[in-house]
Order: sequence, then structure tokens, then C-alpha cells
Amino acid sequence: MTDDFTDSANPALLPAGLSDLLPPDAAREAALVEAMMAVFASHGYERVKPPLLEFEEGLLTGSGAALADQTFRLMDPVSQRMMGLRADTTPQVARIAATRLREVRRPLRLSYAGQVLRVRGTQIAPGRQLPQLGVELIGVDSAEADAEVAALGVEALGAVGIPGLAIDITLPAMAPALLDAAGLEGPARSRLARALDRKDAAEVARLAAEVGPPAIFLTGLLAAAGPADGALAALRAAPLPEGPRRIADNAAEVVAALRRRLPALRITLDPVEFRGFRYHTGIAFTLYGPGRTGELGRGGRYMSGEEAATGLSLYPDAALRAAPPPAAPARVFLPAGHDPEAAAALRRAGRVTVAALSPADDARALGCTHELRGGTLFELAGAADAPATGADDAPVRGADTAPGMKE
Amino acid sequence: MTDDFTDSANPALLPAGLSDLLPPDAAREAALVEAMMAVFASHGYERVKPPLLEFEEGLLTGSGAALADQTFRLMDPVSQRMMGLRADTTPQVARIAATRLREVRRPLRLSYAGQVLRVRGTQIAPGRQLPQLGVELIGVDSAEADAEVAALGVEALGAVGIPGLAIDITLPAMAPALLDAAGLEGPARSRLARALDRKDAAEVARLAAEVGPPAIFLTGLLAAAGPADGALAALRAAPLPEGPRRIADNAAEVVAALRRRLPALRITLDPVEFRGFRYHTGIAFTLYGPGRTGELGRGGRYMSGEEAATGLSLYPDAALRAAPPPAAPARVFLPAGHDPEAAAALRRAGRVTVAALSPADDARALGCTHELRGGTLFELAGAADAPATGADDAPVRGADTAPGMKE
Repeated sequence: MTDDFTDSANPALLPAGLSDLLPPDAAREAALVEAMMAVFASHGYERVKPPLLEFEEGLLTGSGAALADQTFRLMDPVSQRMMGLRADTTPQVARIAATRLREVRRPLRLSYAGQVLRVRGTQIAPGRQLPQLGVELIGVDSAEADAEVAALGVEALGAVGIPGLAIDITLPAMAPALLDAAGLEGPARSRLARALDRKDAAEVARLAAEVGPPAIFLTGLLAAAGPADGALAALRAAPLPEGPRRIADNAAEVVAALRRRLPALRITLDPVEFRGFRYHTGIAFTLYGPGRTGELGRGGRYMSGEEAATGLSLYPDAALRAAPPPAAPARVFLPAGHDPEAAAALRRAGRVTVAALSPADDARALGCTHELRGGTLFELAGAADAPATGADDAPVRGADTAPGMKE
Repeated sequence: MTDDFTDSANPALLPAGLSDLLPPDAAREAALVEAMMAVFASHGYERVKPPLLEFEEGLLTGSGAALADQTFRLMDPVSQRMMGLRADTTPQVARIAATRLREVRRPLRLSYAGQVLRVRGTQIAPGRQLPQLGVELIGVDSAEADAEVAALGVEALGAVGIPGLAIDITLPAMAPALLDAAGLEGPARSRLARALDRKDAAEVARLAAEVGPPAIFLTGLLAAAGPADGALAALRAAPLPEGPRRIADNAAEVVAALRRRLPALRITLDPVEFRGFRYHTGIAFTLYGPGRTGELGRGGRYMSGEEAATGLSLYPDAALRAAPPPAAPARVFLPAGHDPEAAAALRRAGRVTVAALSPADDARALGCTHELRGGTLFELAGAADAPATGADDAPVRGADTAPGMKE
């Protein structure tokens, strides 16, 4: 059946950036989400489910402020107050932690999964409804906590079969701290920040040389981006002032804590990158799969209301592109008059059954790979209409567990 | 930990009818949804995931027209057209079936799970965001199809442990067909319809007697509501004109087809009830659990665009109240320096682990029931701090599968 679900959509049917997920992708995405949520749960992260809509004050405070322009707003006819459709779940989890779960002992480990909506897509990410799942580890400020959350992201993506995962750690506070230490303000600071943002090494070098130390370290740190060991060595070697030194030492601690958990993980570190991590107060990280699958998730340290926290978001739509497709289960046609017990046994054994509702129903046209006839499974592949061969194809009538079969 | 998640919400934090689902309910609801979706999938229903927002024309046609007043609307800044936040998923599935899946062989079996949003709650159902899952069986008009879908609802609810399920079948077209056959129009018809809607038997009898046959059968059919056998006997006995007779015969066929699938199911039939089934063209049904759990789902025959269809919606929030709570898994505290392989083995065996992040972390305060010490599980229940007894408590260090334990 899968092959018949071709996309012949009229693009005018749905607003830009909003789309239908069809078979088999919708089921695969849901399975990926629940498999990753199960990994979070196994590490003690407990699920919360905030509503899709809430008052905009709640959504747009704290880490949510950065998404104000991206949040759909609507008037609540009941309260006559403005509501927002969430563009991110983190501010909602922060609200829950600070109110209903205020008295629960810290560290508080929470997880969530659901949809977020955005007013406009970007050229790289045109979607306006994005599935998202993640965790928040609230009330603890340590490298161990950062490493637990980052490792959890790697474990969750690995659990759904995504190979070759890598993590890129950035220190969004480093460049501002160096510019602070250099006393750089006004237009000169903006120019240097923009050059860093563009990764324009020549321009950074030129502007930093004008300012002198410690801004001048930006040049070396920009060049040090790459495998974590080299970048950490560059950070150790630089005679950093106190603020940037603390940030560098923390990065080394997080990398060490992550290595203890996942010795084989590929870790890169970009000490002066800060793009896209607007509200992070410590390390931030991005998770990548192999090749061109793009970002699979991101996270880092931030303030959850008044509390120190580390969070992680994974993107199931990206995971869907990166994960190997599962084998399609056998789809067994049940003709009129079939044995319901045998059919139930097949379903218990993981097969899909499709019951005939009229004599016109055709097994192959309905995408079936097998047919149940008198308690025996027949394979329908190709033109062959003979019973599938092999010891696996014993009659299933009345069997408590259906036998396996050659597929 | 569960006991600490008390609801100390400030009701002003969230709009009326919108709420947070907290641990352990959010995880339980998600597990119920996926378990019921798995039942649908095992019967060949393939999952689709339409977006939460789409152009209002798409949402509010067909079966969606009835929900126009309940649909949040927003302007799409990209297209400058009005969008609606779905109040029901059925119109979206009808759109998908009629467009992107138009060429797929019928009967087309689709399933969905997601959130729906409504502008206002009702006194009985104050929620404005409701989880919903369901199936649509499209392109077939038969009693067998109706019975398959109704039986699927019973099987899905049974699969999550809800005992004592019952189905109430109604024939929303019967009363209008009798009033048509009686040639009853205008205010007299409205009065009789309202009396039926209120189940005011005396008033129905009085008004129907004034009209004469066949409207007069309404009196007997109203009284016949109850166990399906009695109601079907009353329908057989009534000398119904052609239209109502076809509806009655179809009801008998659906009940028979359902009995073949689920011989033990408690079936009631209310031949002249039509409240709440505004767009149904054949039988409609409501699924109930034991006692006061309320409706667990409903469904029935309708038109999916131009195609005959039967659908079913289940309400996970109601299922959450009706299903027995699962046993909480053991929650094992992992002190600093624990063996990561032993911890991973515990998780593979279904235990939850909670890792210490600092010496201040306290196993009991973090809701743990057990602690891993040097490869051995210790039970923390009560004041006892001794290793749990029994053969189950063998060391787990390096074990591929963690042993069971006394809980």
C-alpha cells in the first residue's frame, strides 16, 4: 500500500509550511518519538504535557522572549486576553517547574513531546509546524548535569538507529565575555560581533588587532574550532582573563564528563560561536547525524525562571530522515469466513491483518503480502499464489502465537 | 515522586479549559494513545498526521461545518487567508483521502492521533484542548464496515485494560425519516423533534398521536430503547414505511455483524435518538466503560467528501480515567562512581535510573525506591536500608539483563 501513497498534493490546499504526514511516515515519526521518550523515561525524566495554547505572558517570558515574533496570537473569547500558540515548549516547562512542581525536590527531570507552531518558516527550515521532544534538567548547575543531558540526546538518537552521531559544543558566552573584558562597546563591538557571526576570520583578526588583548584571543579561538581536544588546548594556552577563563574551564569539564559517559562520541568545540543560542548561559550544543541529515537536536544551559537548568530538544522530522526505515510488517488479507482466532494470533505476533468486507476486496490491490486461507498463510509476492514454503508456515488456526514466515 | 506532583496551580496561570498534564498522567496518556493506535495498525489502519492549522475552507466543509462556531481562527500572514485550528480531525482525513490518497484502492483504512482545540468548553466537558485518536474506513458502505470500526473501538479500549465495555447504537436518520414519511413539516415537526431530543415520552406520544402513523411509531420506538434484542424486535414488529424500514434492517445487520465479532459485547440500541450525531448518514454509536467513566468514544457512518465512510474517535482523557493505573516501575538511584554497564542493564530490564549529579542528591527525596551499590540493588522502601532479600537480588554488574527484584 505504501507505494500508492504518492504525493499528488495541490500545494494550494494547505498553507505554506504546513503539511500532511502520510503513511508510512506518520507512523514512523510517532514510533521514533515514543522510542526516544522511552530513553528519557528510563533515565528518570518524567513526562509533562502543557497545552498548545496559553496566555502570551507565560509563553513569551524567559527563554520564550526570543520567539515573540514567531508566535501566533489569538484572542481568548472566554477571558478576553491574548493567547499564544506555543513556538517552543521550554518556557512552558519552566512555568510548570516554577509553579505546580515548585515543591518537588531538585534536580527536577522533566520531558515533553508535542507540536510547536511558528508564524513564518525560514528558507532552510520552511516548516511552520514542527514536532519537538526534549528534556529539562532543572535546579542544578554543573558540568555533570550538562553532560547527562547531552549524552541523553545521543543515546535517544542512537536508540532509533541513527549511526555516526556527533556533538558540536559552543560557548555562547565566550565572545561577549572577551569583548566585555576588552571594554569594547558601541559600534566597534557590533562590528566585531557581526564579523564573528559571519565567521569572517580575516575581519575578526583585523578588528581584534585594533583592540588588542583580550579581544585578540578571538582570532586564535575562531581558528581553534574543530575536534574538542585541539580547541580545549587552544583555550588552555590562551592567557584568558577571569570571566572567559571560567567559561573555558567549564567547557573542559563538560567535555570530560561527556567522555566518561560516551568515550567513542565525536565531539567538536567552537569556542566563539554563539549564533542561534540567544538565551544560553553556559555551554550549548548541537547534535548531528551522518552526512547531510542536518541538525537532529540542540540544547544547553539556560535559566528556567530563577533556576539553573540544562535542556535538550530533538527534532523528530530530522530523525525521520536520518533513521533507517524499519522493515514493513507482513500484511495479511483475511477473506470472508476466515478464522478470527487465527487472525488474532497473527496480530499478536506483529502481523497486520486486513479483513475482506465484500467479495470485491482484492488482497493485492489492498497492499497485502500474504493471505490467510483455512488457517494457512500464503505468500502473495509476485505472481506466485502458492503457499509460502518453509517450516515457518505451519497452520496458525487456533495457535496462541502465530508462526513466523518467510517474507 | 508521584505523590509530590500535587496540583497547587494558580487557576489564573492558564486560560479556562486549558491545562497541564503532569507526571505520571502525561506519560500514561501517551502510552494509552500508542497502545490503541497499535491496535488500529494491526488491523491495517495506516496513520496520517494532518497539521494543527489549515485554511478554514478545508476544515469547515463536510462534517466540519458543524464545528464552525467551535473553531479558533487566525490570519495567515504568509497567504493573508484565514486559517482554523482544528476542532476535529475527521474533515482533515476526508481531505487527505479525497486528494493525496485519491488513487489508493478502497476501502481505505486510515488512523490518526493528536490534539483538537475548541473555542469554548461545555459544562460537562470544560476542556478546550482534547486529545483524540481514531480511524476512518473510507469508500465502503456496508454493515460489515460499520461493525469492523465499532469492534475496533472496543478492542482498542479493551487493550488498555478498560473492563466492562458497552456500545450504544443509535439511528440518527430514523426519527427524521419517520417525520418525512408522515409529511410532517414546520412548527409541528420542530415541536416533535424537540420532544424527542428531550426524551419526553409523554409529549412525544401526545404530538405523534395527533399526526397518526407512521409518526405514531415514534412512541413505541422511544420506549424500545435498551438492550439491542428488544429494540430490534420492536423495529421488526413496527409496520414501517420504506425509508425507516431500510434504516431498521441496516441496524439489525450491523448488530448481527458486531455480534459475530464480539459475541459477549453488551449492545444497546436507541432507535430514535439523534442528539449529537449531526452529520451521520447511517448508524452511530457511543462506547462506554463501566460506571461513571462517561463516553470513551463515538463514531458512525457519514460521508467523507463524496465517499461513504465509517469513523471512530476515542477520547484518551476519558480512557485515562477509566483504565487501571499501571504499576510504577522501580526507580533506582545511581550514586557517583556507579558501574554504567550495570545501570544500562537495569534500564534495559525496564527499571528507571536516576544518576547522582552531586553529593547532595538524596535517593529517597528524588523518589527512588532502590539504590545501586557496587553492582547490587538495595531496596529503599521504609526505613530499611538493607539489601532486598531473595534470589532476585543477585549482583547486576556487567549482566546483560538486570535481574528482577522484590518490590
